[in-house]
Amino acid sequence: MRVIGIDPGLRTLGWGVIEVSGSRIAHVGNGHCKSAGNDLAARLLTLFEQLTDVVARFTPETAAVEQTFVNKDGAGTLKLGQARGIAMLVPAQAGLSVAEYAPNTVKKTVVGVGHADKRQVDHMVRLQLPGCEIAGPDAADALAIALCHAHHARSSGRLAAALAKGAA
Amino acid sequence: MRVIGIDPGLRTLGWGVIEVSGSRIAHVGNGHCKSAGNDLAARLLTLFEQLTDVVARFTPETAAVEQTFVNKDGAGTLKLGQARGIAMLVPAQAGLSVAEYAPNTVKKTVVGVGHADKRQVDHMVRLQLPGCEIAGPDAADALAIALCHAHHARSSGRLAAALAKGAA
Repeated sequence: MRVIGIDPGLRTLGWGVIEVSGSRIAHVGNGHCKSAGNDLAARLLTLFEQLTDVVARFTPETAAVEQTFVNKDGAGTLKLGQARGIAMLVPAQAGLSVAEYAPNTVKKTVVGVGHADKRQVDHMVRLQLPGCEIAGPDAADALAIALCHAHHARSSGRLAAALAKGAA
Repeated sequence: MRVIGIDPGLRTLGWGVIEVSGSRIAHVGNGHCKSAGNDLAARLLTLFEQLTDVVARFTPETAAVEQTFVNKDGAGTLKLGQARGIAMLVPAQAGLSVAEYAPNTVKKTVVGVGHADKRQVDHMVRLQLPGCEIAGPDAADALAIALCHAHHARSSGRLAAALAKGAA
């Protein structure tokens, strides 16, 4: 199963792709899409085009996007929401299921604690994907989201298998 | 000049298209896109596809989107932001310029006062586009946004013409 994780942002949108087969997880690619243009619509379009390219190039089968932290800065939340709309749309358009994980869930799954800092996340991502070169902090976050999705999909798969076994 | 106005929303996204030639403004079409699906990504995709259809069918040359009112409800702002990302992306993808207007600017331009209520907006839209059937309140808002853009484009055009004349 090939998983893309996406860390949405209006300036920089991080992405990371991993390949999961049984208990083996391998790094496939990571990077970031940077928005460009004078107005909001043009910036959103550049993010859309770059992310569409990434999905076409790496052909993931499932996607996960970080649930945005909603804060008191309404204007910031709105900007992030707009970028997040694109981050959800692109994989959906490619026919992928799109899961959402809260930042604390991602950290708890990848690092073991919900309030881990950026360096710990980066460290654990490198540990779980040995030898991978990470393009930057947004790409590291995106890989963490992909790892989180892989672990959750695996345990729900195990659970489904156990339930099927119990019912048999 | 054919103008599309868009009133973004995650459940219902209103749209309205008008044709402007000189001082004459005519109604072309209006309606709403309704999101469907179990998860956010699927809902955003249905909005994207319906709005893309509208733009392809009515071939507007310029677009205007209402600037979202940012309130203290962060979760609501985020949802609206996501829908707004789609509302900005679709016309940009079709190569249109996308203007943004604050709700008060729209009301002030169409009704004459910044704090007009929905009924006044609806009334003035019908007055300026006689005979048009309006699909609902979101479509009426979208037509108001299109009218606002037409009036602003016209006055800035007049201004540009006057400046060019002054400079000559």
